[in-house]
Amino acid sequence: MAPEEETSKFCEAYPMKGGDGPNSYANNSTYQRGVVDAAKELLSKAIAEKLDIDILLSSNSFQIADLGCSVGPNTFFAVENIVEAAKFKFQSQGQDSQVPEFQVFFNDHTPNDFNMLFKSLPQNRRYFAVGVPGSFYGRIFPNASIHFVHSSYAIQWLSSVPKVVVDKTSPAWNKGRIHYLNSPEEVARAYEAQYAEDMECFLHARAQEIVYGGLMLLTIPGRPNGSSHSHSSINMSFQLLGSALMDLARKGGVSKEKVDSFNIPIYCMSPQELEAAVERNGSFSIESMENLPHVSVDDTVSKSQLLAAHMRAGMEGLVKQKFGEEILDELFDLYRKKLEKATFFFETGKTINFLCVLRRKGNGFEHAV
Amino acid sequence: MAPEEETSKFCEAYPMKGGDGPNSYANNSTYQRGVVDAAKELLSKAIAEKLDIDILLSSNSFQIADLGCSVGPNTFFAVENIVEAAKFKFQSQGQDSQVPEFQVFFNDHTPNDFNMLFKSLPQNRRYFAVGVPGSFYGRIFPNASIHFVHSSYAIQWLSSVPKVVVDKTSPAWNKGRIHYLNSPEEVARAYEAQYAEDMECFLHARAQEIVYGGLMLLTIPGRPNGSSHSHSSINMSFQLLGSALMDLARKGGVSKEKVDSFNIPIYCMSPQELEAAVERNGSFSIESMENLPHVSVDDTVSKSQLLAAHMRAGMEGLVKQKFGEEILDELFDLYRKKLEKATFFFETGKTINFLCVLRRKGNGFEHAV
Repeated sequence: MAPEEETSKFCEAYPMKGGDGPNSYANNSTYQRGVVDAAKELLSKAIAEKLDIDILLSSNSFQIADLGCSVGPNTFFAVENIVEAAKFKFQSQGQDSQVPEFQVFFNDHTPNDFNMLFKSLPQNRRYFAVGVPGSFYGRIFPNASIHFVHSSYAIQWLSSVPKVVVDKTSPAWNKGRIHYLNSPEEVARAYEAQYAEDMECFLHARAQEIVYGGLMLLTIPGRPNGSSHSHSSINMSFQLLGSALMDLARKGGVSKEKVDSFNIPIYCMSPQELEAAVERNGSFSIESMENLPHVSVDDTVSKSQLLAAHMRAGMEGLVKQKFGEEILDELFDLYRKKLEKATFFFETGKTINFLCVLRRKGNGFEHAV
Repeated sequence: MAPEEETSKFCEAYPMKGGDGPNSYANNSTYQRGVVDAAKELLSKAIAEKLDIDILLSSNSFQIADLGCSVGPNTFFAVENIVEAAKFKFQSQGQDSQVPEFQVFFNDHTPNDFNMLFKSLPQNRRYFAVGVPGSFYGRIFPNASIHFVHSSYAIQWLSSVPKVVVDKTSPAWNKGRIHYLNSPEEVARAYEAQYAEDMECFLHARAQEIVYGGLMLLTIPGRPNGSSHSHSSINMSFQLLGSALMDLARKGGVSKEKVDSFNIPIYCMSPQELEAAVERNGSFSIESMENLPHVSVDDTVSKSQLLAAHMRAGMEGLVKQKFGEEILDELFDLYRKKLEKATFFFETGKTINFLCVLRRKGNGFEHAV
């Protein structure tokens, strides 16, 4: 498909809060940083064991893409880990003189704050840095131009809310809720279908962009294999946020119709669901699929405060776009209070972060000429 | 040189005015658009006659860089012209099925408004778009990764003001002026030396980044061969702006010391000077050097009004950084009035836009493996 056909297809974008203010994503993504740190060891292992340096034979530089990079700094830590591990791999194979130059493509939706991303690029970076605007559900790179894809905490975002859940005439209409927990069965089915479609777009695009033998490393928040949607902490947290929104609606702070038409385009997948999508697509082999160790968080503030701050950093853009800036403080304060009382959340909620290493099938030698 | 050594070396940046307001560069660069249009024919000819499509043998995509892209839209017109001409070249050689995908690297200083650039990317573009923050006087791309470099109205900007012209103890101290016209001889010599040094950095970096046989097309505002600095309209216009600033200083609107330490880091080169720099560097052959036809401008407003608007769009960032936002309206209004009275400017001032096509020396076949 030609680039122009793909760029206009995916138009919904949910950037993280830019800038560096108190509620910014940059200052409220310590949990995600924890995930990057927890993934570091697995990442280094994956590169040491799985990276085939012959994929670089026809290329002068090692091209890395970070998809859904947001504004930093987590993306910089992750990329630094990748560069370090890749350099070590070259050196450990006695290829000191062959260590390539690195070029890193930082990708996120067009409305992402790339100005801030660029300003905060590490001064002492060991790579050439580039920003790539556009949805990763479409093509964003030329054919066979990327050697290594990394994406952390990004592909749980769907390309858009499933259309039927905002269609009043559909049995999947999600009135009074903003996610698929405790919704009619059809709502969860619609989210599942959207996930399957999006993941196929994602894998199809990457299959074209990644060189044969190239690796893709995905870190994803999800639910354990075998657990139902209703036991996912992520889903529970959106249910609580939805209930806080409905409370505001009952008090007249926001319109009920707006809440009815507002849904969060995030799907909480299990490793098995991802495996199934990869197998359906057929272009990648699954090299490993592992749960990350538990991420420890700052314990000087209460857990509910921390979770509320993270929820706000991630969802503020989406909420603001729909309901305006003025409800933000009240909404996320209400959410925090609900979280404090939600014992079920901490007792029965299940969540995992898992890391999936995929390899583009095919022979590195037949490529790129 | 490793990327990290190069990224920190060049830290001064003079972004064009971002956004899309009435004084923005985006809305006041119609003259530069005229230059892009005037260059179109020469560009197409250069690609038709000089582009060696064999340089793509070891690559899947055609990599184009636009250096000093600013915020658009001129960069998009230029890039569209390049892509069109390159596609035509492939097709005209019976290589219809071999037309590559295009990836365009839009480069400018880190403070450039990349958010706006990305938002205004043409919807129907025929290329993958990428933003590259950093000074083009250092390395910004991996070794041998670019097939075609374009730069329009950018390399007249020096990497910085020559140090000696702001040194009170130096004979080159440029007291009471902001450029080198009517200054002590040493000031012009310092600008010339800075130009020579910068151009060597520019060519040295590009020689590493451009594949053997790759082309570089530079459009530059300058002075005709054989004409002195004092007959350059560009230099005259900065002299007038300096005189407007000194008027403000005399009225107490700005401090004289600030004017003393303010200089515009632009050098008005002749084609011969560029030729000499290219020959000193040794990595490029000069494929053509031509003056562009006269650029016709919007004649519904007075010429001085238009020139003042262009001057403001280009210099506002620099002036604001030094003197603050509050002087802008008065300064550029004063400048426009001076321009109206400056008959010498229109009678004796000489300016040319010239286009230089360079080819990276070396054999395309020995490359990139």
